[in-house]
Amino acid sequence: MNLDKFKISDGKNFKISEFKTDFTGDLDSKKEAEKRLKKNKEKMRELQDKFYAHDKFSLLIIFQAMDAAGKDSSIKHVMSGLNPQGTQVFSFKQPSKEELDHDYLWRTSKSLPERGRIGIFNRSYYEEVLVVKVHNLVKYQNIPSELVTDNIWTERYNQIRNFEQHISQNGTVILKFFLNVSKNEQKSRFLKRLDTPSKNWKFSAADLEERKLWDEYQKCYQQAIRETSTDFAPWYIIPADHKWFARLLISEIINDTLENLKIEYPSLSDEQIANLEIYKKQLIEE
Amino acid sequence: MNLDKFKISDGKNFKISEFKTDFTGDLDSKKEAEKRLKKNKEKMRELQDKFYAHDKFSLLIIFQAMDAAGKDSSIKHVMSGLNPQGTQVFSFKQPSKEELDHDYLWRTSKSLPERGRIGIFNRSYYEEVLVVKVHNLVKYQNIPSELVTDNIWTERYNQIRNFEQHISQNGTVILKFFLNVSKNEQKSRFLKRLDTPSKNWKFSAADLEERKLWDEYQKCYQQAIRETSTDFAPWYIIPADHKWFARLLISEIINDTLENLKIEYPSLSDEQIANLEIYKKQLIEE
Repeated sequence: MNLDKFKISDGKNFKISEFKTDFTGDLDSKKEAEKRLKKNKEKMRELQDKFYAHDKFSLLIIFQAMDAAGKDSSIKHVMSGLNPQGTQVFSFKQPSKEELDHDYLWRTSKSLPERGRIGIFNRSYYEEVLVVKVHNLVKYQNIPSELVTDNIWTERYNQIRNFEQHISQNGTVILKFFLNVSKNEQKSRFLKRLDTPSKNWKFSAADLEERKLWDEYQKCYQQAIRETSTDFAPWYIIPADHKWFARLLISEIINDTLENLKIEYPSLSDEQIANLEIYKKQLIEE
Repeated sequence: MNLDKFKISDGKNFKISEFKTDFTGDLDSKKEAEKRLKKNKEKMRELQDKFYAHDKFSLLIIFQAMDAAGKDSSIKHVMSGLNPQGTQVFSFKQPSKEELDHDYLWRTSKSLPERGRIGIFNRSYYEEVLVVKVHNLVKYQNIPSELVTDNIWTERYNQIRNFEQHISQNGTVILKFFLNVSKNEQKSRFLKRLDTPSKNWKFSAADLEERKLWDEYQKCYQQAIRETSTDFAPWYIIPADHKWFARLLISEIINDTLENLKIEYPSLSDEQIANLEIYKKQLIEE
C-alpha cells in the first residue's frame, strides 16, 4: 500500500475535508483485510523482538480521534499479539489535581516509553489543543493569569513541536494517528452501543454533548495537524469509517516504520565472542 | 488439570526438593500442550475483556525464578494476545539511587496495576529476600544501621505478607509463580545461548557467577515461599524444565483465577436503561 498518501509531514495546506473517511483503497473485502492484518501482526512481533533486543530507540504511537472512532478497538486488534513486556499503553483522561499542579506535558513525559519499548498513548497532550480549546478549560489549569494570553494556542503548538523534536532527537520515533471518522458513522456506532446490552456500559451521556461540538472539534483537529506535522513527528490521517481498513493501515504504517530503522539483534565485539568460548568451557567442565 | 497440587497457600511444610522440575502431568506432547495453550489464550482474552470493563479488581502476577528459567519467554508466550491496554509489565532490575532513597516496596507500589488491569512483575520485591539476602546487599540500602538487626529477614517476610494482605483486601488479586527449573536444565539453556549467535546477547558473565550460588538461592526461595504463602497471595510452583508445560500451566492458573471471580460486564440501573431510550431518540431526531 502507498502509505505516503495518508502521511502529513508538512501541514501548511492540510484540509481535513480533503480526506475521505470511508476510503478502503484497492481492498474491497473485510476478509482479505483481516488476513493481511494477521500476517502483519506476525511480522510486527518479529520486528518488535529485534527492537526490544536492540534497546536504543523507543517508539511512541499516539491515537487521537473523536469518540467511537475506534481508538480502543484499534489498540486491541492491532497491538494484541505484541510482547506485553515491550509494550505500554497509557490512556490520558481528565487530569488529576496533582497533574494540574504541573505543566501539561509533565504527566505524558513520565509515561514516555523506555528504550526498546513501544509506548501507545490513547489520547495525549494533544487534548491540550483540542478539548481544552473547544471548552476553554485553560482557566481551570492554575496557570498564572499573566501567562494566559491570546497567544496561548500558538505557544502550545510550538511547545509541542519542540517537545517532539527533543524526544525524537534523543531516540524516540513518533507516529501520530488521527482516526478520521464521519459524523454519520459516529451516529451509527453510538446507536449500536445503545442497542447492544453488552455495549451499553461504553455509552456516556457526555458523548452526545461532545457530538454537538463536532464542527469545533474538526476545526481544532485541522489546526493542530497543520501546526504539528513535521518530518520527525508526522500525522497519519486514517480513514476510520471501516474499522477493518483502519486496523490494516495502522499495522502497515507501524511495520514500515520499524522496518525502516533496519535494526538487527545486538552483535558482540570480537573480545566478547572470544569470551563466550571461555564461558562455555567453564560450564562444560563444571 | 488439578491446579491445587502446584499451589501453596500455607508454606510451613514446603520443601522445594519435593517438587519435580520436569513434571508434565498427563501431557506427553508439546504439540498437544500448544494446542491447549492457544485455546486458553482465547479464553483469557474474553475473561480480560470483562475484567477490564468491570474495573473493580486488579490482577497482580509475579514471576520469580533463577536465570534462564523462562520468565521472559513465559510472559511473551502466555500474555501476548491480551489487550495491551489492560496489561502492564514491569521488570525490576538493580534499584536506582532514587529508589534506594525509599523503602524497598516503594518502587513496586508505584507500579501496581490499576483496577481492571493485569499487572505482571518480572522479578519483584521478592528479590529483597533473595538476591539481597544471598549477596548481603542490605548494607548498600541506606537503611539506618540501628534498624538492620538479625531480625531483618523475619521482618521482611512479615512486611511482605502485610503488604500483600493490604492490597488484596483492597481489590488486588495476587498470583505468584516460581518457575522451578533444575540446575542441569539451566546449564543446557546457558549453553544454547552461547551456541546460538542470535541469542548471544542474552548471555551475561554475571549469570555464571550467580549459578555458583545455586544452593544458597534455592534455600532462600524455599524460605521465602514458606514464609509468604497465604490464602490471599499463594505461590504456585511451576515445573519449568519443559517450557511448553510451564506455559500451559500458567495459562490454566490465570484463567481459573479470573473465572472464579465470576465477573460480568457492568449492568445498568433501571434509571440508566430508561435514559438510553432518551439518548436514542435524541440521536435519531438530530
